Amino acid sequence: MKALVFHGPGTSAWEDVPDPAVQDAADAVVRVEAVTICGTDLHILKGDVPEVRPGTVLGHEAVGEVVEVGGAVHDVRPGDRVLVSCITACGRCRFCREAAYGQCRGGGGWILGHLIDGTQAEYVRVPHADLSTYPLPGAVDVKDAVLLADIFPTAYEVGVLNGRVAPGDTVAVVGAGPIGLATIATAGFFTPERIIAVDLAPARLDAAKNLGADAVALAGDEAEQLVADLTQDLGADVVIEAVGVPESFELCTRIVRPGGHVANIGVHGKPATLHLEDLWIKDVTITTGLVDTRSTPTLLRMMAAGRLPASSMVTHTFLLDDMEEAYDVFSRAADTGALKVVLGGPRHDAVTVRASRQER
Amino acid sequence: MKALVFHGPGTSAWEDVPDPAVQDAADAVVRVEAVTICGTDLHILKGDVPEVRPGTVLGHEAVGEVVEVGGAVHDVRPGDRVLVSCITACGRCRFCREAAYGQCRGGGGWILGHLIDGTQAEYVRVPHADLSTYPLPGAVDVKDAVLLADIFPTAYEVGVLNGRVAPGDTVAVVGAGPIGLATIATAGFFTPERIIAVDLAPARLDAAKNLGADAVALAGDEAEQLVADLTQDLGADVVIEAVGVPESFELCTRIVRPGGHVANIGVHGKPATLHLEDLWIKDVTITTGLVDTRSTPTLLRMMAAGRLPASSMVTHTFLLDDMEEAYDVFSRAADTGALKVVLGGPRHDAVTVRASRQER
Repeated sequence: MKALVFHGPGTSAWEDVPDPAVQDAADAVVRVEAVTICGTDLHILKGDVPEVRPGTVLGHEAVGEVVEVGGAVHDVRPGDRVLVSCITACGRCRFCREAAYGQCRGGGGWILGHLIDGTQAEYVRVPHADLSTYPLPGAVDVKDAVLLADIFPTAYEVGVLNGRVAPGDTVAVVGAGPIGLATIATAGFFTPERIIAVDLAPARLDAAKNLGADAVALAGDEAEQLVADLTQDLGADVVIEAVGVPESFELCTRIVRPGGHVANIGVHGKPATLHLEDLWIKDVTITTGLVDTRSTPTLLRMMAAGRLPASSMVTHTFLLDDMEEAYDVFSRAADTGALKVVLGGPRHDAVTVRASRQER
Repeated sequence: MKALVFHGPGTSAWEDVPDPAVQDAADAVVRVEAVTICGTDLHILKGDVPEVRPGTVLGHEAVGEVVEVGGAVHDVRPGDRVLVSCITACGRCRFCREAAYGQCRGGGGWILGHLIDGTQAEYVRVPHADLSTYPLPGAVDVKDAVLLADIFPTAYEVGVLNGRVAPGDTVAVVGAGPIGLATIATAGFFTPERIIAVDLAPARLDAAKNLGADAVALAGDEAEQLVADLTQDLGADVVIEAVGVPESFELCTRIVRPGGHVANIGVHGKPATLHLEDLWIKDVTITTGLVDTRSTPTLLRMMAAGRLPASSMVTHTFLLDDMEEAYDVFSRAADTGALKVVLGGPRHDAVTVRASRQER
């Protein structure tokens, strides 16, 4: 089959690789119908995620059809159409038992396109298939549903829920890329008084307005002034970091009110300065987190009910074979205006899936 | 009367000052029976708290007898023996209505010995007396009760409650000075599996054992190793910072487990480095806070019931007139072994308390 293979920092190619196969009785193999590219994939290509070994197929988000399952898989059958979650869950370790699937110690967590081959391929092997895939409601569009593999649950759990957005709050979202936009969309579930979007790019602030932001500001002094003006100099109740650089995190800690929450979603490659000389007295709660995807079933129901405006985030679609072009468009988002790119190709029924010797 | 007056960084004196008087109808004047010195007072003397103006009487903790009240005071009467809280609360602002008294915007918060004259004096004026004093149960010792003006509620609310200590947890307390020791004592309320105390001074680690620490370690590599050994390399469920320097805060973020809590109590004068490149994925919650003293009535009841081992923390007692000597002993804690010093003098009935022109 074809897959997007990482060959070390700066190098990747859409090329022939062996078809994946069931290796463990809990595995499923899924034919990929739709896949997307995440900002994290660009971090990997830059060399920021050194544990990704050359030769790994990238990608941790997909929708597809199950084509084979191991003997220990109970809830997923060939022919089922499923969402492949960015988080794999063993279901048995102490973290999984607390629904903290992102921290799974039983061979799960974020492994697809990270520690094992991922979804940017015609087929993908999904370990612990029962807990790592979700049945797809018929009412949802495949290209929208793929956004529920990572960005929507990440924005909702790590941003909105960790930040404890509540009715009447002033919520500031710093960063209006795909994660920030999904945060704005899901913060609305809790009916805050206002959502303020902050970004460096005016075009992204326009997208933020379309997804529910009530006010927008350019990052920096303008954002600080707007938050102060709208909150009688108090600061925002909840500030959500959706960029992943020290400057944006530090802005968040300046615009949060006493007693407020800063929820970090951004994937950071460098330390930030924490101004404890100002913050020690301020009753601030700061959270970080990898998504657990425990909200995925809820979000799928919300999408099926038309309550999740995902489609407005998909700016570009490609055939699966156009993977390299899609990477180019996504990585030049400032020029291309790309938010999310979704790839989905024709069905490849002819591919043979082999059973491995480890199957029980 | 006599009072400890701040004369700018490095200078203070126990000297004659005018007697305080009721200035507002909500004020009370309290004759000080017992008072203590806080690490924060030493920060002020070093010049770390620039908003304290020269001429201010220091001190924000006291037990005493009410000698006069303004016309709007309802619950406090002359002759009542009260605890004077480090936090003054107007009771009417948005923060007081949420019991976030430390953030009071109605003229309260931490003001005693900070923005107005404090308690290291023979008499002190206490604004918003109804909400800023607590009746003293007869069963408690005055010298112990004064520790409930600040350090016990601070340790309990900002450390134990913000850190969400729960039964079965591994709790690490970094810093075994008075605040750290009070944290250890009150963390025990929630029956953690173990409490690990960390400090640079072996003598303080001995005190930590006396107050309930199950294991102790010197700050640095020894502490990291001990936490790893006791938690199968996972880290502590809750880590509480009770020092106030970047190194100790950063140690806390290294020894917390995925999904754990870091509760900062320390008063910081400098920024710390927040290693978001490690923490973004770790589901960590970091809290900061000034005490609200909403737990003070509970702690007073616990003390009256003999459930709060405060007296073991009072290492030195002085007469009120020995204020300068007490500061010397407290500021040289490494040599003197001082934990908490408590000052209480003979009764000064002869002092005349004047009613001010502002009294209604």
